[in-house]
Amino acid sequence: MSEVGIGLVGYGTVGSGVGRLLVESADEIRLATGREVRLRAVCELSAERRALVPAGVGTTTDVADLIGDPGIDVVVELIGGIEPARTIQLAALAAGKSVVTANKQLLSQHGAELLQAAEDGGTFLRFEASSVGAVPVIKVLRESLAAARVTGVMGIVNGTTNYILSAMAQTGAEYAPTLAKAQELGYAEADPTDDVTGKDAAAKMAILASVAFHSRVVLADVEHEGIEGVTDVDVAHGRRLGLVPKLLGVARLIDDRPNVRVYPCFVPLEHPLAGVSGAYNAVFLESDSFGSIMLLGPGAGGTPTASAVIGDVISIVNTAPGGYVRNCTCSKELAPFPSAEVASRFYVRMGVADQPGVLAAIAGVFGDEGVSIDSMQQTGGADGAQLVLVMHPVPEAAFFAALARIAALPVVQGRPSVIRIEGRDGS
Amino acid sequence: MSEVGIGLVGYGTVGSGVGRLLVESADEIRLATGREVRLRAVCELSAERRALVPAGVGTTTDVADLIGDPGIDVVVELIGGIEPARTIQLAALAAGKSVVTANKQLLSQHGAELLQAAEDGGTFLRFEASSVGAVPVIKVLRESLAAARVTGVMGIVNGTTNYILSAMAQTGAEYAPTLAKAQELGYAEADPTDDVTGKDAAAKMAILASVAFHSRVVLADVEHEGIEGVTDVDVAHGRRLGLVPKLLGVARLIDDRPNVRVYPCFVPLEHPLAGVSGAYNAVFLESDSFGSIMLLGPGAGGTPTASAVIGDVISIVNTAPGGYVRNCTCSKELAPFPSAEVASRFYVRMGVADQPGVLAAIAGVFGDEGVSIDSMQQTGGADGAQLVLVMHPVPEAAFFAALARIAALPVVQGRPSVIRIEGRDGS
Repeated sequence: MSEVGIGLVGYGTVGSGVGRLLVESADEIRLATGREVRLRAVCELSAERRALVPAGVGTTTDVADLIGDPGIDVVVELIGGIEPARTIQLAALAAGKSVVTANKQLLSQHGAELLQAAEDGGTFLRFEASSVGAVPVIKVLRESLAAARVTGVMGIVNGTTNYILSAMAQTGAEYAPTLAKAQELGYAEADPTDDVTGKDAAAKMAILASVAFHSRVVLADVEHEGIEGVTDVDVAHGRRLGLVPKLLGVARLIDDRPNVRVYPCFVPLEHPLAGVSGAYNAVFLESDSFGSIMLLGPGAGGTPTASAVIGDVISIVNTAPGGYVRNCTCSKELAPFPSAEVASRFYVRMGVADQPGVLAAIAGVFGDEGVSIDSMQQTGGADGAQLVLVMHPVPEAAFFAALARIAALPVVQGRPSVIRIEGRDGS
Repeated sequence: MSEVGIGLVGYGTVGSGVGRLLVESADEIRLATGREVRLRAVCELSAERRALVPAGVGTTTDVADLIGDPGIDVVVELIGGIEPARTIQLAALAAGKSVVTANKQLLSQHGAELLQAAEDGGTFLRFEASSVGAVPVIKVLRESLAAARVTGVMGIVNGTTNYILSAMAQTGAEYAPTLAKAQELGYAEADPTDDVTGKDAAAKMAILASVAFHSRVVLADVEHEGIEGVTDVDVAHGRRLGLVPKLLGVARLIDDRPNVRVYPCFVPLEHPLAGVSGAYNAVFLESDSFGSIMLLGPGAGGTPTASAVIGDVISIVNTAPGGYVRNCTCSKELAPFPSAEVASRFYVRMGVADQPGVLAAIAGVFGDEGVSIDSMQQTGGADGAQLVLVMHPVPEAAFFAALARIAALPVVQGRPSVIRIEGRDGS
């Protein structure tokens, strides 16, 4: 029974978690692989962290020591960011090592190059931990559903924004104080930009869409809107309509072309994603052959992420070296489907003058542009009349054309609030 | 690129679905495996079904033709039941073929024998479709979470009973008419015994617990209660308490010993399993290393089940023939943990005489037996006073000892209704 040697780059929270799990779960890993999987060396620049590496495991500050070690079969990169992570992964793959990583930035921007390098080196690149923490979405997509022709991936893939929106829905509070509270509790970082703008979610969706559609979707292909514009007023109107606010990543294969976006939207209370609250992540997969599947779990955290890394290591040890096209499931060059042509449902709220003929004027413009109204409600208040509309599914270009005309009407006050609705009867 | 030949035993709904998916998804399967996976022959006794097999695929009524065919690498058994399925699988494994099956009865009763035969033959036995349809719980447990030391598996693994309980909760109707309605709509079979008694769920839980705990749990080890005793009155009291009725399979590893059971229980409205309604299945996995993960999807149906079978075929083609201990993840002989010692939460409802001192008498007996009451409510009604209690977690033996004494009190009328509560703060 030959040994499998692991070299770890980065010994922070996740790295030390991987080290711990390799020891604690040695029996289970042996059962699952028939091999002895052993942490052989750690590359870590911080002396403080290096001191935490267990006795018997080598330490170094030069990653070349790991890559040059013939006893190391798998390099686990956990430093994140583009460089030097990219150079390290490429060097490891070129040296015939397999690579496991949790690096979403790198994978979502240079995935194709890295997968090709793995293919060229006859090695493996695995990245389960890069997208939804401990939830094995990538494995399920790549393996269990490989033949299922997945046509949709819809997910809550960012725990920070889900925490904030869940809290707003629960307390009725505004965005800014809810964010501050989340920061105080450690659910949001001091600089929350990547999370609240949807950029973090966009990187994860680029990875998931690539795997689901066997295509190459990169971060730059993913249009993203954040949650900064979601107001307590809209959340309250949503509740009245039986809708819950979520920041969703939505990837669809339309006419064999991917459309991948991230935006805040409303989901019906009875949809399985509506119940996913707090820091949890969930991904909803759709296909003609299996209907819908949802996977839910903790989106982040040292041990869940480490558990996903170990799963990838086991997968590498167990994968047949011969026939399996191991890394190039993302090889299709598919032109993106333009968002303007996607049919979406919209919720719209606007301030209007409280005078006769307003509704008729607005409904007239929507009708002109072929946008059909599902429901409409006018509410009075101290701030004037508010009009809340829910539209039937409509190509986005038509909707926004109508909305631009309506926003220019003198009876419409301020900028209309627009939120998409997902998860309602097949839309 | 050598071909992988598939022999299909049984060409009913699932079998023909497998045949269709192999053709429709040929490109995706080639991408996922690097091999040509082809349906080579079908064994089917019904001439009517044989006529549906596509041209170019061999047909036979003698399974020995498939097992003796050197061009067949994988035998897919889809006839169900114990015999002749067991003999067929053993013969195929002995002949060096791998086996894929959806047969829960067989796996839950003879899994150890079959896995050993696969190991002896140097082949694979895969059975994803045997437990939760298209939801790849077994793959996730065996591979992604192999090192995660799963300590709990809690699931809605029977669509029929979930449909009935969801309908009862929604409409307030009684059990019998709801079952009749489910039969009328095709959600329950003409003879629903295996479903409503929990036996079907018990077979699935035996399989899931074996895989999750690397142990050998067979159907006979799984105590099961059905849903026939769940009344509309209890469902209504549950709703008032924020609880939803579910038939759950509950597998726990306590002191390294499995306790696996199926029973109707109440789940808090905010628990992810509470929102799983209708014919859906869901499995909630717990571990120290990843927290909780839930997998949800259609529990039955020809195409979802066929999709799971194809996933298993792909897994076999992709699994390394060398080091992987392919089938014996269920090798541990663990003595079951006795249910009497499991700490559970209980809901109890009983009719009581509407007279002073009743509450004190009942509370006194519970106190005597060390059973602590979480909440208690007495409601009057045309049928007399009803007492509804929710208990703190308590060893089941103590609870039932107390209940037997209480049921014998002259002030208690009729038989108390008892439903466990799951999913409430770590219980």
